[in-house]
Amino acid sequence: MRAGVWLIGACGSVATTTIVGALALRNGLADPVGCVTAHPALREVPLPGFADLVFGGHDVVMSPVAKKAGQLAAAGVLPARLVEALDAEFGQVAAELRPAPAGATQAQTAAGIARDITSFARRHRLDRVVVINVASTEPAPRPHPAHAGLATLEKALETTLASQEQVLPPSSLYAYAAFRAGCSYVDFTPSTGARLPALAELARDRGLPYAGHDGKTGETLLKSVLAPMFVMRNLAVRSWSGANLLGGGDGANLADPGANAAKSASKQRVLNEILGYLPDGGTSIGYVASLGDFKTAWDLVTFSGFLGTPMRVQFTWEGCDSALAAPLVLDLARSTVAAHEAGHAGPLVPLAYFFKDPLGDTDHALHAQWEALCAFLTGP
Amino acid sequence: MRAGVWLIGACGSVATTTIVGALALRNGLADPVGCVTAHPALREVPLPGFADLVFGGHDVVMSPVAKKAGQLAAAGVLPARLVEALDAEFGQVAAELRPAPAGATQAQTAAGIARDITSFARRHRLDRVVVINVASTEPAPRPHPAHAGLATLEKALETTLASQEQVLPPSSLYAYAAFRAGCSYVDFTPSTGARLPALAELARDRGLPYAGHDGKTGETLLKSVLAPMFVMRNLAVRSWSGANLLGGGDGANLADPGANAAKSASKQRVLNEILGYLPDGGTSIGYVASLGDFKTAWDLVTFSGFLGTPMRVQFTWEGCDSALAAPLVLDLARSTVAAHEAGHAGPLVPLAYFFKDPLGDTDHALHAQWEALCAFLTGP
Amino acid sequence: MRAGVWLIGACGSVATTTIVGALALRNGLADPVGCVTAHPALREVPLPGFADLVFGGHDVVMSPVAKKAGQLAAAGVLPARLVEALDAEFGQVAAELRPAPAGATQAQTAAGIARDITSFARRHRLDRVVVINVASTEPAPRPHPAHAGLATLEKALETTLASQEQVLPPSSLYAYAAFRAGCSYVDFTPSTGARLPALAELARDRGLPYAGHDGKTGETLLKSVLAPMFVMRNLAVRSWSGANLLGGGDGANLADPGANAAKSASKQRVLNEILGYLPDGGTSIGYVASLGDFKTAWDLVTFSGFLGTPMRVQFTWEGCDSALAAPLVLDLARSTVAAHEAGHAGPLVPLAYFFKDPLGDTDHALHAQWEALCAFLTGP
Amino acid sequence: MRAGVWLIGACGSVATTTIVGALALRNGLADPVGCVTAHPALREVPLPGFADLVFGGHDVVMSPVAKKAGQLAAAGVLPARLVEALDAEFGQVAAELRPAPAGATQAQTAAGIARDITSFARRHRLDRVVVINVASTEPAPRPHPAHAGLATLEKALETTLASQEQVLPPSSLYAYAAFRAGCSYVDFTPSTGARLPALAELARDRGLPYAGHDGKTGETLLKSVLAPMFVMRNLAVRSWSGANLLGGGDGANLADPGANAAKSASKQRVLNEILGYLPDGGTSIGYVASLGDFKTAWDLVTFSGFLGTPMRVQFTWEGCDSALAAPLVLDLARSTVAAHEAGHAGPLVPLAYFFKDPLGDTDHALHAQWEALCAFLTGP
Repeated sequence: MRAGVWLIGACGSVATTTIVGALALRNGLADPVGCVTAHPALREVPLPGFADLVFGGHDVVMSPVAKKAGQLAAAGVLPARLVEALDAEFGQVAAELRPAPAGATQAQTAAGIARDITSFARRHRLDRVVVINVASTEPAPRPHPAHAGLATLEKALETTLASQEQVLPPSSLYAYAAFRAGCSYVDFTPSTGARLPALAELARDRGLPYAGHDGKTGETLLKSVLAPMFVMRNLAVRSWSGANLLGGGDGANLADPGANAAKSASKQRVLNEILGYLPDGGTSIGYVASLGDFKTAWDLVTFSGFLGTPMRVQFTWEGCDSALAAPLVLDLARSTVAAHEAGHAGPLVPLAYFFKDPLGDTDHALHAQWEALCAFLTGP
Repeated sequence: MRAGVWLIGACGSVATTTIVGALALRNGLADPVGCVTAHPALREVPLPGFADLVFGGHDVVMSPVAKKAGQLAAAGVLPARLVEALDAEFGQVAAELRPAPAGATQAQTAAGIARDITSFARRHRLDRVVVINVASTEPAPRPHPAHAGLATLEKALETTLASQEQVLPPSSLYAYAAFRAGCSYVDFTPSTGARLPALAELARDRGLPYAGHDGKTGETLLKSVLAPMFVMRNLAVRSWSGANLLGGGDGANLADPGANAAKSASKQRVLNEILGYLPDGGTSIGYVASLGDFKTAWDLVTFSGFLGTPMRVQFTWEGCDSALAAPLVLDLARSTVAAHEAGHAGPLVPLAYFFKDPLGDTDHALHAQWEALCAFLTGP
Repeated sequence: MRAGVWLIGACGSVATTTIVGALALRNGLADPVGCVTAHPALREVPLPGFADLVFGGHDVVMSPVAKKAGQLAAAGVLPARLVEALDAEFGQVAAELRPAPAGATQAQTAAGIARDITSFARRHRLDRVVVINVASTEPAPRPHPAHAGLATLEKALETTLASQEQVLPPSSLYAYAAFRAGCSYVDFTPSTGARLPALAELARDRGLPYAGHDGKTGETLLKSVLAPMFVMRNLAVRSWSGANLLGGGDGANLADPGANAAKSASKQRVLNEILGYLPDGGTSIGYVASLGDFKTAWDLVTFSGFLGTPMRVQFTWEGCDSALAAPLVLDLARSTVAAHEAGHAGPLVPLAYFFKDPLGDTDHALHAQWEALCAFLTGP
Repeated sequence: MRAGVWLIGACGSVATTTIVGALALRNGLADPVGCVTAHPALREVPLPGFADLVFGGHDVVMSPVAKKAGQLAAAGVLPARLVEALDAEFGQVAAELRPAPAGATQAQTAAGIARDITSFARRHRLDRVVVINVASTEPAPRPHPAHAGLATLEKALETTLASQEQVLPPSSLYAYAAFRAGCSYVDFTPSTGARLPALAELARDRGLPYAGHDGKTGETLLKSVLAPMFVMRNLAVRSWSGANLLGGGDGANLADPGANAAKSASKQRVLNEILGYLPDGGTSIGYVASLGDFKTAWDLVTFSGFLGTPMRVQFTWEGCDSALAAPLVLDLARSTVAAHEAGHAGPLVPLAYFFKDPLGDTDHALHAQWEALCAFLTGP
């Protein structure tokens, strides 16, 4: 089963790593390390093959895949040999990357987006296309009355001009356009995406599934295994503080206080959900340009043992953000297309495993999420 | 239901913290933080109450509970206020601590041990007594043909004099005596304990349960949640190295190469079991007298992400060994007595949750062990 | 030679630890660990003895020394035995602690401060009194034209009412009052203190020495030995990022963005001064109430080696702020009184060793500061 | 002034990085980052230029420079671009690398070594050649009576056959041969090298300088700045423990208990020398093949502050061994040749700055060593 993957932010680091990785897998140049759908427990599940994914996408600033891949190789994110070996393949993908459409109204912009996606699907004879947002994090948008229902939303999109304050933030406009084009939608970022009542209504009406939010790739991944340990051992966490240092586009973007606050909140929410209480401490995000994609996080956890004895655990996570995100993007593409195929619509709650801030009311412990994912994919 | 807890190594740090903690719980001076049998999921299980545990034990070197408790308070292991508040209670416990018996043969020694335990049970009218080994780690014993079967073992115990090389190491002799006295047995140390065919035969004959080995209180606890994370994310661990620094009696003891090797091996085994392969690296154990009970472990894990990108996570665990072990000793006492009561005999495989090197062929991932424990205790 | 030490913030953790420590030294209950003036290289210098320091001070909120000392013992900052042993001595010190005076104008307030200090000196027949600010960090004050010269300042202090915006921040008003009372002044905080042209003029006129700013007790202390290492090895530091977690009064105070910014800036300034360039990265300060006085700082330094190979060093500092500050307060008291005695006036630049943000144009490398301190104290 | 650098272990990682680096500097493709003789304070010193160093050497296993450089590029030690750019230059260096000579007696072997070096010097018209040992660490040799004096030594070298236990370990035989050939000698390893009375006698007779031992490139470098901090602050270090993980040839070699013990001892010696006492704790060395040249060291330091408050600092050092060593090898070549030129003979004590285990009775604090180095090189 061939399937389309339409990336928002298609010229960024995560998208490029995803594309290069998929090409490497298709050409037998790499193993699917880091792809959870390649785990032995899921190998028998009839998902679209890695080799059967066809890529396209939008970006606000265009740059050739080959150039971006070269930069990522120089930065140590991608192996230089691999980028060289795949050089001949990049042209075909590059031909499917489009500048982000811009109309006089958001309705027109959405129509332009949907047109590009539909044309991509037709050109490649794809039954299913999943739209995945891997663009930079947006600041949290201001509430707008048109978010509450589909009819009001569609009217507002038609009447609000480009010069006025926009009704939908970009991530939500892409979700809207995806649903209009009959596609499923995944938000790998903390942005709003499909998380508005009007968009939920649209997805339900069209029978389309969606998933999100905010790929769980580092510090929060560790939290989702360490916090359950304290619960299972009945230990009392007194404080949990994290310092995140990152460069790259997302780093600069998260230095923006609005985006930073959104991300920090979702990071601490995980603790509250797992522990049942919110310990002291918070999460700071610092921009360190020279770290590039190599995010470094330090967490200090202080806890009380038996009879109150103070103890502590600290960890440092040194991971490459794009290399952690890309295989999960492939997993989400495969899983969402399969869910669409199987007739699932609305929020895909069992995909919580992939996200820091998952849709639905779910357990945040990684092992519980893993079991839910396996049950969902292997089916009844 | 009142139950007896007979501690081997009864004057040591773990035993004293266990006793002080149980007294604190009985007197309402502390909460059962760190006791997993006090977890909401297990609160309804009909286990012997913390307040219903009666303590006694053997040690090779005797020292008053009050004195040892005072030393632990000075070292920051126990709160000084608590030790002062419980001062009046220590005398009663101290009266039940006995010097380790020594006979002319190991058979006679075992008889002396069993006699002390039986007399303790009668004096306190205890239906069930569990013998728990919290003594220092022994060097691995040399294999002996008498380990293979009960009949041969009993003959060898009777004929081998104290001046000759001993048939059983102390931990196993205590297990033998416990079974002879109709008691269940738990080994919280890496020593041999009940892990000999001859002793398994005896436990089966007598319908007695036993559990072990080596309480999972620190670095290995973290391994049992972090290693499954790498598995669930399909990431390839390249190396996992650990440095353990500890003082106290166990530290000095583990500096002995024999004991050290036993402990290191059980620590790396967990990785192999969970990951399905053994990564590079090993575990070192260093004795640092001034750290006392405050064990510090540092682990470095290097792993390959998607397309081979090298990443790493490191953690430092700063825990108080006795304060981590003591609540688990109480949990094991409650769980083993309940299992005995419920008619379980032989190795208690579902108690793997508590151990670095559990009996039986079990999953080493903490969450799987937790689920097995809950299922066992809440029962059908 | 007996000398007076008048503490601003006299009921806080640093002041109490300083007082308890001095009493412990006087009574032979402790060694001067952490006191640099007790270093063998400085032992022969004729400074006022630890036993010859007499304490008094002001605070905005009064609390008995004994009570605060008890709290510090419960928190693990002071040994409980020591606080008990010194109980009889606290009354005498408590009698010399005064609520912060408040007049209708800042001139009147200053007169009240000076009166309290003079009366203290007379009561104890002290030739020299040093006023040391160990109060919480103030937000940076707004510039005021009266800061430029003494005559203008004195006029402004007399005419500005308590209901109006104040001319001097508290730390500077105390410095003014100290100089008026013929005392030397030390600022152990990042607050303004004597760092105003008008106050420099006053100190010069009266022949009085002063020192500051911001005691170097933790992360910056490490920076001042690690940064010179990179310089001496000609390695290129690419980024230096720090996360500081602290509770206690100062933690809550530094969570205030104004104070935080002042402290962060002085922390990064040290790097620029030592390295000759400012690497990427910054310093974050997070308030974690439950950490109390036990500050934890994590620093990540990335650097380029030969031919650009990327390398990194990270450290975690777990120190008790008051226990690190108190011995330095004693050192500063002894050193400043001796400098006053020896006829030094104006900024005591060779005391840079003690400070994150020292007065004068000095080397920030610890070893250079140490040599300057030794040369100053041992004299020609 | 052109000068020869004859490397023992000439095909290893350190030697290859040294050679590639020197070629990069000569061709203006890199800056001398990490070279301390390029520090502004030393820039005016008339040392042989980086571009004026001519390389040759011996190794027991030969491999082409280009191949080894390619491997180091693949491992991230050298930039791939640089290795490609210098490809044309490698042939010339390769032509000067020789298999280690082997004669029927050690006297004959030494003669072979000396012949190779002399022929190299003549071929390139080099007035001065320095022999630098960068081979793998040897096990400590057994004492031999012939080590005590030159006459006895020379006799023993002549009469001991290759089939018998050797009189000198390889590092010392190279030192002997170097001196016989009129060359200075530097030992960058912990091996014995010139540290024998007989060899000191020979160097003195011939007026030749020598330096060593064991390049200070990582954990010990940090110790030499952190330990003085504790001294200058009069803090009491209670324990200092280190765990070193390394792969590469030296890692495998140091896993040998003999070599390991030698290295660990020299690492702890530094603490004793600086602190004036030996704290608790030790240094472990673990071989982790997949780390390659990227050594990772973790140190935990526990110390007592004022009134005994326990505190701790821990650090992790992640450095590339060859990239740290190579610039120091260039520095040592330049400095030793200049010292030879200036008429210095015997142990070059002021080069202690470069070594973990320096010759002579010197201060181990890095800043003191730096001042001694600068004074020596800038001269009177």
